[in-house]
Amino acid sequence: MIKSRIEQLREIMDEKDIYAYIIPSSDFHQSEYVGEYFKVREYISGFTGSAGTVIITKNEAGLWTDGRYFLQAEAELDGSGIELFKCGMPNVLEIDEFLEKVMPENSTLAFDGRVISSLEGEKFAEKLKEKNIKILYNEDLIDNIWNERPPMSKEKAFLLDIKYAGEDFKSKLNRVRKSMEEKGATMHIISALDDIAWLFNIRGRDIKYNPVLISYAVVTLKDVYLFVDEEKLSANIKEELNKCNTIIKPYFDIYEFIKSIDRKDVILLDKSKTNFTIYNNIPSGVKKINGFNPCMLFKCIKNEVELDNIRKSHIKDGVAMTKFMYWLKNNVGKIPMDEVSVDDKLLKFRQEQEGFIEPSFNTIAGYKDHGAIIHYSATKESAYELNKEGLLLVDSGGQYYDGTTDITRVYVLGEIDEIQRTHFTAVTRGMINLSMAKFMYGCRGYNLDILARGPIWELGLDYRTGTGHGIGFVLNVHEAPNGFRWKVVPERNDSCILEAGMVTTNEPGIYIDGSHGIRIENELITVKGKETEYGQLMEFETVTLAPIDLDGINPNLMTKSEREYLNNYHKKVYDNISPFLNEEEKQWLEKYTRAI
Amino acid sequence: MIKSRIEQLREIMDEKDIYAYIIPSSDFHQSEYVGEYFKVREYISGFTGSAGTVIITKNEAGLWTDGRYFLQAEAELDGSGIELFKCGMPNVLEIDEFLEKVMPENSTLAFDGRVISSLEGEKFAEKLKEKNIKILYNEDLIDNIWNERPPMSKEKAFLLDIKYAGEDFKSKLNRVRKSMEEKGATMHIISALDDIAWLFNIRGRDIKYNPVLISYAVVTLKDVYLFVDEEKLSANIKEELNKCNTIIKPYFDIYEFIKSIDRKDVILLDKSKTNFTIYNNIPSGVKKINGFNPCMLFKCIKNEVELDNIRKSHIKDGVAMTKFMYWLKNNVGKIPMDEVSVDDKLLKFRQEQEGFIEPSFNTIAGYKDHGAIIHYSATKESAYELNKEGLLLVDSGGQYYDGTTDITRVYVLGEIDEIQRTHFTAVTRGMINLSMAKFMYGCRGYNLDILARGPIWELGLDYRTGTGHGIGFVLNVHEAPNGFRWKVVPERNDSCILEAGMVTTNEPGIYIDGSHGIRIENELITVKGKETEYGQLMEFETVTLAPIDLDGINPNLMTKSEREYLNNYHKKVYDNISPFLNEEEKQWLEKYTRAI
Repeated sequence: MIKSRIEQLREIMDEKDIYAYIIPSSDFHQSEYVGEYFKVREYISGFTGSAGTVIITKNEAGLWTDGRYFLQAEAELDGSGIELFKCGMPNVLEIDEFLEKVMPENSTLAFDGRVISSLEGEKFAEKLKEKNIKILYNEDLIDNIWNERPPMSKEKAFLLDIKYAGEDFKSKLNRVRKSMEEKGATMHIISALDDIAWLFNIRGRDIKYNPVLISYAVVTLKDVYLFVDEEKLSANIKEELNKCNTIIKPYFDIYEFIKSIDRKDVILLDKSKTNFTIYNNIPSGVKKINGFNPCMLFKCIKNEVELDNIRKSHIKDGVAMTKFMYWLKNNVGKIPMDEVSVDDKLLKFRQEQEGFIEPSFNTIAGYKDHGAIIHYSATKESAYELNKEGLLLVDSGGQYYDGTTDITRVYVLGEIDEIQRTHFTAVTRGMINLSMAKFMYGCRGYNLDILARGPIWELGLDYRTGTGHGIGFVLNVHEAPNGFRWKVVPERNDSCILEAGMVTTNEPGIYIDGSHGIRIENELITVKGKETEYGQLMEFETVTLAPIDLDGINPNLMTKSEREYLNNYHKKVYDNISPFLNEEEKQWLEKYTRAI
Repeated sequence: MIKSRIEQLREIMDEKDIYAYIIPSSDFHQSEYVGEYFKVREYISGFTGSAGTVIITKNEAGLWTDGRYFLQAEAELDGSGIELFKCGMPNVLEIDEFLEKVMPENSTLAFDGRVISSLEGEKFAEKLKEKNIKILYNEDLIDNIWNERPPMSKEKAFLLDIKYAGEDFKSKLNRVRKSMEEKGATMHIISALDDIAWLFNIRGRDIKYNPVLISYAVVTLKDVYLFVDEEKLSANIKEELNKCNTIIKPYFDIYEFIKSIDRKDVILLDKSKTNFTIYNNIPSGVKKINGFNPCMLFKCIKNEVELDNIRKSHIKDGVAMTKFMYWLKNNVGKIPMDEVSVDDKLLKFRQEQEGFIEPSFNTIAGYKDHGAIIHYSATKESAYELNKEGLLLVDSGGQYYDGTTDITRVYVLGEIDEIQRTHFTAVTRGMINLSMAKFMYGCRGYNLDILARGPIWELGLDYRTGTGHGIGFVLNVHEAPNGFRWKVVPERNDSCILEAGMVTTNEPGIYIDGSHGIRIENELITVKGKETEYGQLMEFETVTLAPIDLDGINPNLMTKSEREYLNNYHKKVYDNISPFLNEEEKQWLEKYTRAI
C-alpha cells in the first residue's frame, strides 16, 4: 500500500518535473502535535511517530527520525522500501546534506511551504544554491493522491473565562503592543497556536490533547486580526473578540493578506514558528525582525489566578491518581488488566473530576521492560498483561478548565528486586533534591539539573533526556522557554532564567533496557523566597499531589532531609486528597502516605 | 604629591594637545599581576589595588574600579582630587561612555598602546568615531615625569626540567603548529606570558608570584621567535631553545618585526591578550584570525608527570600548613602575633619545604571582621593582634618547582558562637559536596556550582564570587578556561567543559561584613570515572592536604555522606602528612583528623 502511494506521488512529481519532495510531520503552525488532516507523513510512509521527515526522490525514499523512534520506525517501515536515516548517528547524512548529494544540478525540489518553517526552508535554499536547484513551495502533492484524507477539524472553540485566565484579552493585547513598540515593530504575525490561544483567551479542540484553535493572528499597533474558520466561534467568543475590535478573516486568507503588507511596516515574527510560505509572501523590502513572540515570553509566567487554578486542578488530578493507585494495587492479580485497560481505568477516574476536558497527552503505561521505552505507547497488540509482580510506569495528564497536568508514578505491583528498589529510591531522591532547591534569582535549568541527576549519575546511570519541561495553562503540555537540562540545546529554547510563576516538570528517571523503567514526575511552580542583600532567593512549590509508592523506597538510601521532605509531601497529599475519598480509600491512603 | 604628579602630566598633555590620557593597570601582556616598572596607575593615583584604570583629562581625573576595591579606593584617593567611578553600579558611566561625554569634537585621546588590549583599544576608537577624536597610542607620558621609576626586571629565567614539565618544547611546538594548520594560520603571535612559559618550558622571576618571563613569541610553520632580554637566558636555556632553532631577538624588537610581516601571512592571535600597538603594527591587508591561543587550551590540561608533581607539591604544602596550624593553635594567646607576623611564620614553614620558590600570591590573613574582606591584604598599620577567640582566615599558596598551590583554611582561635559554627559547617559542606560530585563528561562549572553554593544559599547567604578558578603548573595561580561559576561571564572565560587533567580550586565562603569571614579551599583534579553506555563519568581527585579545623564544625548539620567524606579526607591528610611531623605534631594531628 505504501509502495503504491509512493508510486502515485512519483507520477505527479514526474509530470511537474520535480526531482525531490519533502514531507515533514508538521501542520501549518509548526505544532508538536497535529490534527488528522495533517498526518501526511504517516500516510505516505506508515510511520506513526510524532517526529520524522520523509523525502521522496525519483529513485530514493527516506525517513529521518531521532533516537526515540529508531526501533518503531524500523518496524513500521518494513517492506515499504523507505530507508531509515537515524538522525544524530555517526555518518548519517542530514536532510539538507542528502538533498545536496543526490539532487542533480538545475533540478527541482518541492514541498508544501506551509508545513516547513521559514528557518528550515532557508536552510534548504542556502544548501542547494550552488547546484542551482529550483524550489517550488506551493505544492501539496499528497492532497492529490490521498482520497480519503480526513477533513480539517471543524470543532467549536470555547472561551476561557476570566476566572480561569486571570487576565483579559485587552490587557494582553496592550502588553503585546508595548513589546512591539519597544522593538520598533508596527506589525506582529503570530503563527504559534498556543500563543494565539493565550492572547485571545480562546481554546479549541482542533488538535487532540492540545486545546488550541487552528488560526493565525496579526497584531498592528491599531488593529488586531484573527484568521480562523468563523464557524468555530460561538456568539460569546465573538462578543469578547469585538471588545478589542478584532477583525475576523477566513483562515486561508492569511496568505493574500501578507502579500498586501505595506512597505513601511516593520514585521515582528519568530522564523522558527512562521511557515515558509507566509514568510515568502511578505513583500520584498519590508523590514522583518526575527524574535520570540512576546506572547511566548508572557504566557510562561502564570498569573496568580492561573496559579490558583493550577493548584485546584492538581488536587482533582491527584484524587484521580490516588483512586487509580488504590484500585490498581488492590486489584492487580485478581482481575484481568493490561497496559491499555489500566489507561482506560485512569481516564475514567479523571473523567469523574469536575472540569476535565481530555488527556493532556497520550498516556505512557509501560509494564516491566516496556517501562524502559521512554515514549512507549501501548496498543492492543503490544500490551502486557499486568500481574502481581514488577513495576508499572504510568505517565499521564489531564486538560481541565483550570489547568493542564502531567504526572508520572511507578507502581510496585508485587515483588521487586533490590536493584529495582535502589533505582526507585535514586529517582525519588533526584526528584526530591530538585524540589527542595533554594537558589539565587538568575539561575537557569542547567544550574539546577544536577540536583535531580546527581543521585542517578552516582549509580553510573543516566536518563539521557532533560529533567523537565515548561507546561502550559489549559494549553500544550510542552511549553517554552523554561526547563531543566544540563546541556544547552539552543533549538529547544528551554534554558531561560527561572522566573516566579513558571511551571516546570521535574521528572528524572532510570531506564534499564529489557528490564524496567522508573520515572517520578511532579510539577513545580517557581516562587520567590527570601529577599536578601545578596539578591532574591527563589524556590519551588510542588503542585502535584499523589502518593509516591513507598513499596519502592529503601529509606536507608535516603538522607534525613530527603526523608523529611518525602514525609511532609505525603502529609500534604493526605491532607489535600483524603477529603475526596471514601473510607476504605482514605485508610489505605493513610498507610501509603505514612512517615518513613 | 599625587596632585603635583597629575599637574605635571597635564602640562605634557597640554604641550602635545592631548585632551584625555588613559592609564590602566596592565603591563604589555595584559597580565593580572605586573612588575614594579608597570605600576604606572599606582604612581599617578596612589591607588594600590590590582584592578583599576585612571583617566586624566584637561579638567577631570577619575579612577574606575570594581566592587572588591570600593572601600580601599575611597581611602587611597582621599585628597588626590581623583573621582572614584564604581564600575557596575547604577548610573555610573563606563570609561568609554565617560570619554564620549566629556571629550570635545576633534580632540585627542592618548594612551600607551602597549598596556591596552587591542579589544579595548578598538572599543574606544569605535565609541569616539562620531566625535572625530584622534587617538595617539605611542605615548607613555608617565615615563617623562616618573623620575625614580623602577627599571624593568632583569631577573634570570630558569628552565623547567622535563621531569617537572613532562613534555618537551619540541612536542609542544608541534602541537601548536598543528593547531595553526587546522585554523589555516601561517603565523601565531603569543603575548600571554604564561602561554609562552608553558610552550618553551621556561620560567622567569619578572613578576612577583607569577614565575613568568617578560617576552613575546612568534611561531610560524617553519620558525619560532622569542623576543626577550637575552641576558636573562642561561646557557642551558639557550641550548634547549636551540634544539628547535629558536631565533632569539631583543624584547622591544617585536614592534618592528610585526611591521615587516608578509602580506600573504595569516595571523592567529588572541585580541584580548594582544596589545593595541602590536595589533595596529600588523600591515593592513594581512588576514587575522582572532582566537584563543592553542597554548592556553593545551596547558590547562595537565599531563601525568605534571599531575604527579602537583600531588607531591601538595604534600609539602600540606606539611607546611599543618605545622603552621599546630603552631598557631598552640601559641595564640601565649606569644604576640598579628595578621602580618602569622604570614611570615607560614612563609617560613613553606620555605623549609624542598623546591619552594616563592608564594603564589599575596597571602590573605584576615582575623575576625577582616576575614569578611574578600581581598584583604594586611599591612603593619591595619593588622589585628590575634587573641584566643574568633576566626582567622588564611588564603595562601606556594610556587614550588613541582607545582603551584592555593589553599584557604579558617582557624578557630578560641570561643566562637553558634552562627559562626553554622557558617563554618555550611562552607565545609559546600566544599565537600562539590568535591564528591560524579558527573557526565560534558559538564561545565555552571552545572556543578550549586553543589558548593547550595548549602550557603539555603542559609539565605551568598559569596558573590565564583566558586573556583583554574590554576597553573608552576605558573599563574589564576588560569583559564576552567572554573566553577553559576553565571556565565564570557570575558572571564572560565566555563569550559571540565576535561580530565584540569586543576580547579573549590572555595565556597561566607562573608559577614563587620563580623567574620569563612572560606575553605581545596584544589581538585578532574579525573575520569567509569565509562558507561551513557557516556564517560567524571569525578574529582582532591590534592590539597591539610586539616579542616574540626573546632569549627557542627557534625549534626552534616549528612552522613558528608561526614564520611570529611573523615576519609582527614585520614588521607594524616597518612600523607604525619610522616613529616615530629612526635608532638603527629599526636596533635591525629586528634585534629579524628573521625566525627
